[in-house]
Amino acid sequence: MSYLKEIGGRAKSAAFTLSQALTDEKNNALLSIAEALESGQDDILAANAGDLKEAEQNGMGSAMLDRLRLNGARIKEIADAVRNVAALPEPVGKTIGGETRPNGLEIVKVTVPLGVVGIIFESRPNVTVDCAALCLKSGNACILRGGKEAIRSNAALVSCMQKALEGTKIPPGCIQLVEDTSRETAAEMMRLNGYIDVLIPRGGKGLIQSVVRNATVPVIETGAGNCHVFVDESAKHDMAVNIVNNAKTQRPSVCNAVETLLIHKNCADALLPEIAGRLSESSTEIRGCEKTLAILGKVAVPACEDDYMTEFGDYIIAVKVVGGIDEAIRHIEKYSTRHSEAIVTESYENSRRFLREVDSAAVYVNASTRFTDGGVFGLGAEIGISTQKLHARGPMGLTSLLSTKYMVTGSGQIRV
Amino acid sequence: MSYLKEIGGRAKSAAFTLSQALTDEKNNALLSIAEALESGQDDILAANAGDLKEAEQNGMGSAMLDRLRLNGARIKEIADAVRNVAALPEPVGKTIGGETRPNGLEIVKVTVPLGVVGIIFESRPNVTVDCAALCLKSGNACILRGGKEAIRSNAALVSCMQKALEGTKIPPGCIQLVEDTSRETAAEMMRLNGYIDVLIPRGGKGLIQSVVRNATVPVIETGAGNCHVFVDESAKHDMAVNIVNNAKTQRPSVCNAVETLLIHKNCADALLPEIAGRLSESSTEIRGCEKTLAILGKVAVPACEDDYMTEFGDYIIAVKVVGGIDEAIRHIEKYSTRHSEAIVTESYENSRRFLREVDSAAVYVNASTRFTDGGVFGLGAEIGISTQKLHARGPMGLTSLLSTKYMVTGSGQIRV
Repeated sequence: MSYLKEIGGRAKSAAFTLSQALTDEKNNALLSIAEALESGQDDILAANAGDLKEAEQNGMGSAMLDRLRLNGARIKEIADAVRNVAALPEPVGKTIGGETRPNGLEIVKVTVPLGVVGIIFESRPNVTVDCAALCLKSGNACILRGGKEAIRSNAALVSCMQKALEGTKIPPGCIQLVEDTSRETAAEMMRLNGYIDVLIPRGGKGLIQSVVRNATVPVIETGAGNCHVFVDESAKHDMAVNIVNNAKTQRPSVCNAVETLLIHKNCADALLPEIAGRLSESSTEIRGCEKTLAILGKVAVPACEDDYMTEFGDYIIAVKVVGGIDEAIRHIEKYSTRHSEAIVTESYENSRRFLREVDSAAVYVNASTRFTDGGVFGLGAEIGISTQKLHARGPMGLTSLLSTKYMVTGSGQIRV
Repeated sequence: MSYLKEIGGRAKSAAFTLSQALTDEKNNALLSIAEALESGQDDILAANAGDLKEAEQNGMGSAMLDRLRLNGARIKEIADAVRNVAALPEPVGKTIGGETRPNGLEIVKVTVPLGVVGIIFESRPNVTVDCAALCLKSGNACILRGGKEAIRSNAALVSCMQKALEGTKIPPGCIQLVEDTSRETAAEMMRLNGYIDVLIPRGGKGLIQSVVRNATVPVIETGAGNCHVFVDESAKHDMAVNIVNNAKTQRPSVCNAVETLLIHKNCADALLPEIAGRLSESSTEIRGCEKTLAILGKVAVPACEDDYMTEFGDYIIAVKVVGGIDEAIRHIEKYSTRHSEAIVTESYENSRRFLREVDSAAVYVNASTRFTDGGVFGLGAEIGISTQKLHARGPMGLTSLLSTKYMVTGSGQIRV
């Protein structure tokens, strides 16, 4: 039996016990994990130091190093996030439908865990604990496969969580780490049907595309965000400037940041210089179409086709002057990854058209795209943001980690 | 551009118009289709005769020929099924959640069509119309890829439906048929990301496994049903005999028919001969474990390991005597395709354990597995029965063909 199938087998058998666990048993386990992370801080930080040392030797950039780095305060944050998950309402075993049929059969539809959730992710060690906690609360075993660069940290975190479970009613096997970070093992994990019920990739475009192309296990595609803001002719100028600036610069590295500004030709002359002025405060580079360049001059550089397809994740924004809402919607249809799009407008008709006609996970009128987030949307926690249409779309909370089951009770009914 | 991408492009552009259609526009289109199928009966039957002739020449068996055959009465049934779909409530644009956040953002979650649904299916031409109607009602364009043996019938049915749409507000392009029934085209269809939002295979195990293994488009796995009935020690004998007989013989070719009977050792001596006696009325073959053979003698033949893994789809049943509910649940866990399982019992505790611990789409107490069906469950119609846990599980009605979208309206909110 392969290394991964052994892990899968352990996860599967733990998943059954976990699926039957009571709410208090799961919450106590989560609180034990939070406690253990804090009291085991020294071991975790030592392991993290090993990862950081190797990463530095390998020339990892400072932004990436920062994502990889743990310290006392961050471990406290991670532990508190686990406590927050414990405080969320029980998602499993909820009756979400049902009826008594004419023949007396009673049909009830209830929520059940998915079973075993596989998560393939990159660098940030907090994801390890976050995903394990959300899976545990939703009654799912998890198989975590983090990046090579964080393997010591992840191993220490998982070992700490597993030990914490030993004193609880929840089997330690429900949190599994794939310590072999080779590409072959990742590829095998994507095809581990029969052991993994759903695979969630969390990371960059390359990782997500690789999982989508290669997995035979059902996948929830997350994250890629080529988001748009369309500033309509009737937009209030202050509001437009604030929203574009916030969507681009408040945190440019995240998936709900805007990448392309579309602006109505009738307000571009007046508004583009204002927007450019505000963006210059953060030294944001503007890559514009010909009309943009004609208005902004040397403040902007020329945009190429590729720029409209790119999730910059940085202080760069593509700009295109459009003839109106039809062209804006067509542009979004062509280039968007269907994550989040916003219109800034005072037109009732255009607000309504944008909401109905733009086919993305979250569509906004007069608000920043930066709000697309499980916490902000009131989901309590987030396992990722789905950009596919199947199963879950947009920010995924605990309920995205559930399936359903029909329970049917009768008194001897047969089909005639 | 490839043949399939052209089809995909047409479906995608029609899907947009269809997604914005009003309920009456969709229902009128469905009624036009029903009408056209009846008035175009001669053309359809002529095409079907061509398929039947070729199938006979190729030596197709009589059961398969019967599935392929259309006649006036069947076309009337197909048209009436379309009228029933028209009569179902509108599934699109339903608000299924929402709240006003503390910052004043109003978040509303609404149902939206998936977009373009691909369906790969075998032989029965009624599936062509059925799927097209359900997709249309749920606002989805469809790309239908039926089997080679029904290509003339399918082409005639689709052409008839498309012509019927010409006089309506719904674009004919929303029903697309893949007329090239080569394996290569099917393989390309499974990887048509960007054009197809979800792929639903309907047919035998081979077809479904091929789609699951090869598709990069999200898939809803349907149909395979290795279903079990466990007759517990406390079962009422009459009820057990009726349920086993109904689940096996009322329609053995369908996915919710039972394939393996598990029976408690303490009632096997008395009950197995009764069950065997009833099954003999339909000449059902019994393949039993050693204990079964010891009880039934020559009425049964020996079962091999493979028999417990097989969806016979025929008048054959595997039988195993088990020590009790634990062994029954373990057996189901090992061999089931997680479709439908039933327990026959008078034990409150065992009924509860079976419902909670058996991880299948539908679990039954004291009723036949044959009830797992969209119509019977009150869904109004059925596009298939999902045996996966993602997106939909069990019988899938119109709501399984939907996704959701967050619509967020504000007054200039930015994230701080």
